Amino acid sequence: MAAIDLNSDLGESYGAWRMGDDAAMLAIVSSANIACGFHAGDPAGIYRTVQAAAANGVVIGAHVSYPDRVGFGRRDLDATAEELIADVIYQIGAIKGIAAAAGTTVRYVKPHGALYNRIAYDAKQGQAVIDGIKAVDPALVLMGLANAPILDLARRSGLAVVAEAFADRAYTPKGELVSRREAGSVLHDEKKIADRMVQLARTGTLEAIDGSTIRVEAQSICVHGDSPGAVAIAQEIRRRFEAEGIAIRSFAGKA
Amino acid sequence: MAAIDLNSDLGESYGAWRMGDDAAMLAIVSSANIACGFHAGDPAGIYRTVQAAAANGVVIGAHVSYPDRVGFGRRDLDATAEELIADVIYQIGAIKGIAAAAGTTVRYVKPHGALYNRIAYDAKQGQAVIDGIKAVDPALVLMGLANAPILDLARRSGLAVVAEAFADRAYTPKGELVSRREAGSVLHDEKKIADRMVQLARTGTLEAIDGSTIRVEAQSICVHGDSPGAVAIAQEIRRRFEAEGIAIRSFAGKA
Amino acid sequence: MAAIDLNSDLGESYGAWRMGDDAAMLAIVSSANIACGFHAGDPAGIYRTVQAAAANGVVIGAHVSYPDRVGFGRRDLDATAEELIADVIYQIGAIKGIAAAAGTTVRYVKPHGALYNRIAYDAKQGQAVIDGIKAVDPALVLMGLANAPILDLARRSGLAVVAEAFADRAYTPKGELVSRREAGSVLHDEKKIADRMVQLARTGTLEAIDGSTIRVEAQSICVHGDSPGAVAIAQEIRRRFEAEGIAIRSFAGKA
Amino acid sequence: MAAIDLNSDLGESYGAWRMGDDAAMLAIVSSANIACGFHAGDPAGIYRTVQAAAANGVVIGAHVSYPDRVGFGRRDLDATAEELIADVIYQIGAIKGIAAAAGTTVRYVKPHGALYNRIAYDAKQGQAVIDGIKAVDPALVLMGLANAPILDLARRSGLAVVAEAFADRAYTPKGELVSRREAGSVLHDEKKIADRMVQLARTGTLEAIDGSTIRVEAQSICVHGDSPGAVAIAQEIRRRFEAEGIAIRSFAGKA
Repeated sequence: MAAIDLNSDLGESYGAWRMGDDAAMLAIVSSANIACGFHAGDPAGIYRTVQAAAANGVVIGAHVSYPDRVGFGRRDLDATAEELIADVIYQIGAIKGIAAAAGTTVRYVKPHGALYNRIAYDAKQGQAVIDGIKAVDPALVLMGLANAPILDLARRSGLAVVAEAFADRAYTPKGELVSRREAGSVLHDEKKIADRMVQLARTGTLEAIDGSTIRVEAQSICVHGDSPGAVAIAQEIRRRFEAEGIAIRSFAGKA
Repeated sequence: MAAIDLNSDLGESYGAWRMGDDAAMLAIVSSANIACGFHAGDPAGIYRTVQAAAANGVVIGAHVSYPDRVGFGRRDLDATAEELIADVIYQIGAIKGIAAAAGTTVRYVKPHGALYNRIAYDAKQGQAVIDGIKAVDPALVLMGLANAPILDLARRSGLAVVAEAFADRAYTPKGELVSRREAGSVLHDEKKIADRMVQLARTGTLEAIDGSTIRVEAQSICVHGDSPGAVAIAQEIRRRFEAEGIAIRSFAGKA
Repeated sequence: MAAIDLNSDLGESYGAWRMGDDAAMLAIVSSANIACGFHAGDPAGIYRTVQAAAANGVVIGAHVSYPDRVGFGRRDLDATAEELIADVIYQIGAIKGIAAAAGTTVRYVKPHGALYNRIAYDAKQGQAVIDGIKAVDPALVLMGLANAPILDLARRSGLAVVAEAFADRAYTPKGELVSRREAGSVLHDEKKIADRMVQLARTGTLEAIDGSTIRVEAQSICVHGDSPGAVAIAQEIRRRFEAEGIAIRSFAGKA
Repeated sequence: MAAIDLNSDLGESYGAWRMGDDAAMLAIVSSANIACGFHAGDPAGIYRTVQAAAANGVVIGAHVSYPDRVGFGRRDLDATAEELIADVIYQIGAIKGIAAAAGTTVRYVKPHGALYNRIAYDAKQGQAVIDGIKAVDPALVLMGLANAPILDLARRSGLAVVAEAFADRAYTPKGELVSRREAGSVLHDEKKIADRMVQLARTGTLEAIDGSTIRVEAQSICVHGDSPGAVAIAQEIRRRFEAEGIAIRSFAGKA
């Protein structure tokens, strides 16, 4: 039977500010990327979300970021390797502490936003992230962009990896994400998105933006929960997977 | 043979800003209270200091604080219990992560500045700090002010404690610290301070500001390293302890 | 004809996080308390809100706060006078800069949250806020809690003041706010609230929580916009004021 | 008689952390670039430095930065134009407020660190900085890198500019700064530096790193004060200028 992981970014509220519907998403996904305080998440809010993930049996990962709260971690930053390594260690450690308090365990690391996009192709910052992860806990898995060089870089460094596809994004014929600046880069139709994800889970392929069929070997699918529309898409994917007999489960097993 | 712990606040630089002489102090103390990023310390700087502590065989503790970098954690803050518990867990976790990367282990927790002073006598915030420590790792020791209620509160909550005296501070006849606002509250004479600390280590007593002898049962002595004068005092205490055959070692054993 | 000011806290989004419905509130109020970046508000968001206030002819004030973003400025902080004076100057200056860019002018200062509550009765922090305002621009008006000592303190210091009542709060027989911790402290019934505010605007009196009639001489009424319910209350007050012929206008005249 | 401006970065302490010797530098320079809180500077510290600048008759400018305190504004950041414009307005406004309280006036704007380097050649971020300055106060002067495109961009936008040379930096034959990564890029010899600056003030030329003579038309010279060695260089330049009859005065006239 086919099986795949569904992951989403959670714990992204900050103090008095709310973001996303963590409760709704924890009923849908198998893995929760937990904000670590650098782009989003205050300790009390992170703790509540990690407790809820534990209660729902959802596996957690550390959603590490550049230190840029006002920019939500979405702006490229020329951090040095020394800074990045320590930033990654610090953030993973913080979430490990909260996970311990909540009776669960951090199983993977997914860089956030601009850091995610940059390390997909930038070996220097990528290696720093890898080195940080290995320094704090070499058993952690790195979740990275399917078809991007970061996955091989991590494997060669001795880190287990999980390749990720984006449910609501179009792909180029080369298997890369179509830039958000281009028309058609973001998909909105729930049914079409669910169809694509069923194909992905079954065959490891997707239709690219030019109509060609490409390989996207992903062990996890990223879904969003920051708007009612995004939650609806995630729910539709889950509903279809259940209807089609595709198991939704973390690559890491039980939480 | 008498033995006592010497501790100091380290890792308090922040980005481009230097504070204290961590290298000098790591040659003197047996325990290092490591800034966790809330009042001081950036990840890269904390990591360097923790690596140096490990290389020197110095035991480390998490120097947790209110989130107040611009005020250096020295300003009383009405944090809720929920906030404090999570802030403590997050900070301890972050330092545990860095300790793991540096090949050492966090053995104790010492609250910093205004939080330290407040929980010495405030049971509500004190209990929150205790609950946070227990949630993340109940084997951690709480370092607190000798003769203050926090120590019994922690013991009753099942947490091991270490009582701490301040080398350069005068004490009231009741065994409390003389407020910094009062004349004579801070001692500066290296020799006199060292004499007092030898007496403390040997007999568990000190001379109070009124000349009476008081009990100060402390397993650790706090020394400072934020000025050349402070480093000189710490060095003199170490020199005298070595001359008098008083061992300087952490309550927690080897680092 | 009776006239009164309606004010609301605006510009409280932060980066990617939204808070409040600034557009809706700018159609209701005559004065906008603009977050200055210390408890809420990033420069780009503040600028957008100040531009919208200018376009709506709404007078703006600087909503200065303790530096506590994660606590939304709601936690009492033991800042020194030197710190508070400079924090107030800095924040007012920042909003003045944004106001100049948006073609409008800062006319008043309203401290936010814990700072507002503390200076209502604490002369030391109150004097620091007054000194900060006078240092940067002595023509600014201080908006403070009706019936609280801060108003006289400011007047004696040569600062013009505006007394403020809270539309959705109950009052004690002494004319003070009933603590939020007590039952009945916050009112929710739109019609009843509007009735009370009509009485306030016409007679300078309110019914206290014990049924007695008290004097609350206020030149401004604070309404909220951080939830659909809050916006509805504010809209009902405006509707009633218009029906009753009570003019809604800023104490400062035109924006 | 030849005359030139000497400028230095001041107000870069932060809370409990000290940086630079502002008192020493205010006796040397004619212009002080004042940190605005984004890369360095807390309000109380900025206020003290601006008061001291006013007392010394030193003209002040706003040393605006990317929001990156932990990286001291030295890391390139992909801020949007909307963000940059508002960040620049906010920072200038804040320093204007502090200047008003200190009885002085902000006369110019000098971007700091990575922002300075980036806008020297990046027209998109450069235009955003220019737009921000013009929006808040079009009478402000932009201080920028001599021989870089930013100066013409600002002039074409209607902003007055001042070109700046760096006392302790080597120049390429094209008149650009030699990258800090290259050998010989930073000069240390006080006498040689002073010789170069005398030549610059008199003739508008310098010897490039290859020995050729280049034009560097600068109305201001940047000197540093963040180490005793840096202060000594600045003092030597001042001493030589006085001996040679070169006036040290701000392009903006009296403070």
